[in-house]
Amino acid sequence: MAHALGLGRRGMGKCWPNPAVGCVLVQGGRVVGRGWTQPGGRPHAETQALDMAGDLARGATAYVTLEPCAHHGKTPPCADALIAAGVARVVAPLPDSDPRVSGQGFDRLRKAGIAVTTGVLADRAALDHAGFFLRVEQGRPWLTLKLAMSLDGRIATATGESQWITGPQARLAVHGLRNSHDAVMVGGGTARADDPSLTVRGFGNVPQPARVVVSRFLDLPLLGTLARTARDTPVWLCHGPDASAELQKTWDGLGARLIPCALRAGRVDPASLMAALGQAGLTRVFCEGGGQLAASLLAADLVDELQVFSAGVAIGAEGLPGLGALGVEKLALAPHFALVDVSVEGGDVRHVWRRAAATG
Amino acid sequence: MAHALGLGRRGMGKCWPNPAVGCVLVQGGRVVGRGWTQPGGRPHAETQALDMAGDLARGATAYVTLEPCAHHGKTPPCADALIAAGVARVVAPLPDSDPRVSGQGFDRLRKAGIAVTTGVLADRAALDHAGFFLRVEQGRPWLTLKLAMSLDGRIATATGESQWITGPQARLAVHGLRNSHDAVMVGGGTARADDPSLTVRGFGNVPQPARVVVSRFLDLPLLGTLARTARDTPVWLCHGPDASAELQKTWDGLGARLIPCALRAGRVDPASLMAALGQAGLTRVFCEGGGQLAASLLAADLVDELQVFSAGVAIGAEGLPGLGALGVEKLALAPHFALVDVSVEGGDVRHVWRRAAATG
Ligand SMILES: NC(=O)c1ccc[n+]([C@@H]2O[C@H](COP(=O)([O-])OP(=O)(O)OC[C@H]3O[C@@H](n4cnc5c(N)ncnc54)[C@H](OP(=O)(O)O)[C@@H]3O)[C@@H](O)[C@H]2O)c1
Ligand SMILES: NC(=O)c1ccc[n+]([C@@H]2O[C@H](COP(=O)([O-])OP(=O)(O)OC[C@H]3O[C@@H](n4cnc5c(N)ncnc54)[C@H](OP(=O)(O)O)[C@@H]3O)[C@@H](O)[C@H]2O)c1
Repeated sequence: MAHALGLGRRGMGKCWPNPAVGCVLVQGGRVVGRGWTQPGGRPHAETQALDMAGDLARGATAYVTLEPCAHHGKTPPCADALIAAGVARVVAPLPDSDPRVSGQGFDRLRKAGIAVTTGVLADRAALDHAGFFLRVEQGRPWLTLKLAMSLDGRIATATGESQWITGPQARLAVHGLRNSHDAVMVGGGTARADDPSLTVRGFGNVPQPARVVVSRFLDLPLLGTLARTARDTPVWLCHGPDASAELQKTWDGLGARLIPCALRAGRVDPASLMAALGQAGLTRVFCEGGGQLAASLLAADLVDELQVFSAGVAIGAEGLPGLGALGVEKLALAPHFALVDVSVEGGDVRHVWRRAAATG
Repeated sequence: MAHALGLGRRGMGKCWPNPAVGCVLVQGGRVVGRGWTQPGGRPHAETQALDMAGDLARGATAYVTLEPCAHHGKTPPCADALIAAGVARVVAPLPDSDPRVSGQGFDRLRKAGIAVTTGVLADRAALDHAGFFLRVEQGRPWLTLKLAMSLDGRIATATGESQWITGPQARLAVHGLRNSHDAVMVGGGTARADDPSLTVRGFGNVPQPARVVVSRFLDLPLLGTLARTARDTPVWLCHGPDASAELQKTWDGLGARLIPCALRAGRVDPASLMAALGQAGLTRVFCEGGGQLAASLLAADLVDELQVFSAGVAIGAEGLPGLGALGVEKLALAPHFALVDVSVEGGDVRHVWRRAAATG
């Protein structure tokens, strides 16, 4: 199952709105088939593994990281494919929470005489599929927030220098995170200040995540990198209802996708933003700041995971804070996170935190 | 030698202005004597180890973490004691940099026919004795700065809550750091806001470090914990030349020691402060903030080590910054540190950084 989960993670960020599933077929102690959800969501992991196994699938055990689907979508149901191939046993950690599947995949397998075992590595699988489940159950994607800061929590100097706070190895880790998410998101302030490209670099020719910018009035550079490359790699602009029709048309003409959101306290409402991204099919979003957007997502309790990079430099209080105002009055009411991982990335420290309820 | 260094560290924070030395005597593969500099600086490590070994010292090898002293101070020279005991060989990582000793201890041993080996674990020894060397060579103590912060680099909420940002294990680690330093230091702002006790707790009946408060006008609570306990555990007040004579007298009457310092830009000059503490005999100072004092020490390039504790809570930009203004214009000119250790303390991350030149 650990092997199947590892395979499944290869699809992360590349098969939304589908879950990134992994499948391993074992026959007499030998792996005879392996598969994972392919870019775009098809073929499914089970189909791939069955194709590879051919006749060896008969009597095999299938380790699948999520309940096999039971409905006819764009592909025939995987439960039927496993039955047709003569698989003897299916091991899966969790039922799917999609109402079209939940429990029905397992039922169909059992009715066909296949032994079904569930619960194996369920916590780990729940974490891998958390974005998929969140979208199905709450209509919003999983949100990972990156904070790449100086020792004292600053993301830029007073004069706006920010690119070289952390070192090359930490920046490569950030590209790895982009690669495992469906979309990369920044606030309008960062788009204006940094002219970022927000693409995955250093991982070969991988599918690129969508690039999301949040800006109420679409006051964004029309000659910048995002504008120039919107036809090559998707640019999605989440704007308020009062963004000018003209700017919307211009951006549409440049190839960007326009996503209207509601307002709250004069800004794009974080809940409306995340709901719109879920509606658009995203299961995993990676927010890279800046400080203001990060703070409003945190204040709305929408952040599932924090990826913090601390660099060995002190910028001081004139620098730009990694998190803007949160409106927290008492420490007990501040957003709390549980530590899940610490590592060293070159000369920087990386610490990963998750909302306590989602620690898994 | 590693054993001797471990023994030496037991004296850290307890034997200033002397170095915290460790000594192990080995005879025929067996440890026959062990010693470390005792609280107050006497007896010396060598004397202790020789006393324990008795006749077994004859022909033994002495592992000493610093060159044995060669001058008559408050104790007779350790080099002579080693010679008198008939030790055959002395292994020491480094020469002492005290001009009364440097090289002369080794010379005296060699003249008496004792084999002397140097250089073993010299980097580690240089780090352990860095405070002693800094004081001898530059007239100031080693400075460790603690920053116990939220994820976003805040040390208190807007309303001043600060005590419970990090958890019990991180707080115990802080007491361990107090225990290995000669003095604990805070700014006047912290003394006014928190009424701290600044003592070592949780380590049994250990000698307490001196408690240093930096305040230009001595505007400090006369009924607070420090004032009340100044007779039990030393309180040193580093003040400006213009602190009122009356307040100086009052604090003197309460049992505090008054240490005048020069001013710079309207505040106690950090360089003058550290020189005064070196003059008073301190070799290792542990500064616990607050943000303003920490920033002025950093800006003056006086911080040798940073002990950062990051807690899983976000406070937001309204909170009090862990570092005040540094006056840094360009990132390249900001104070840079090299990572030397990362660990998990309960639910918090501890990361230790040192000035690149002092990494050892
Ligand atoms: N070190 C790093 O890793 C890093 C990462 C990112 C950014 N940065 C630095 O951070 C700076 C930009 O940060 P920032 O805090 O000024 O800007 P930001 O958070 O990127 O963007 C804030 C802007 O986003 C728009 N917005 C719309 N809805 C919002 C909402 N609900 N909450 C917050 N913002 C919303 C607003 O602009 P509209 O008026 O367009 O709506 C707002 O001014 C730059 O200097 C950049 O270099 C550093
Ligand atoms: N989380 C933690 O670990 C932690 C640790 C410490 C403090 N805190 C919090 O931090 C807050 C206090 O921090 P703070 O930044 O306001 O005060 P601070 O740094 O403790 O003290 C600043 C004061 O020190 C005096 N001072 C004298 N010379 C100075 C110099 N060269 N540089 C800076 N200060 C000098 C000045 O007061 P005079 O007018 O008296 O000269 C100045 O106002 C409190 O809320 C406390 O709870 C938290």
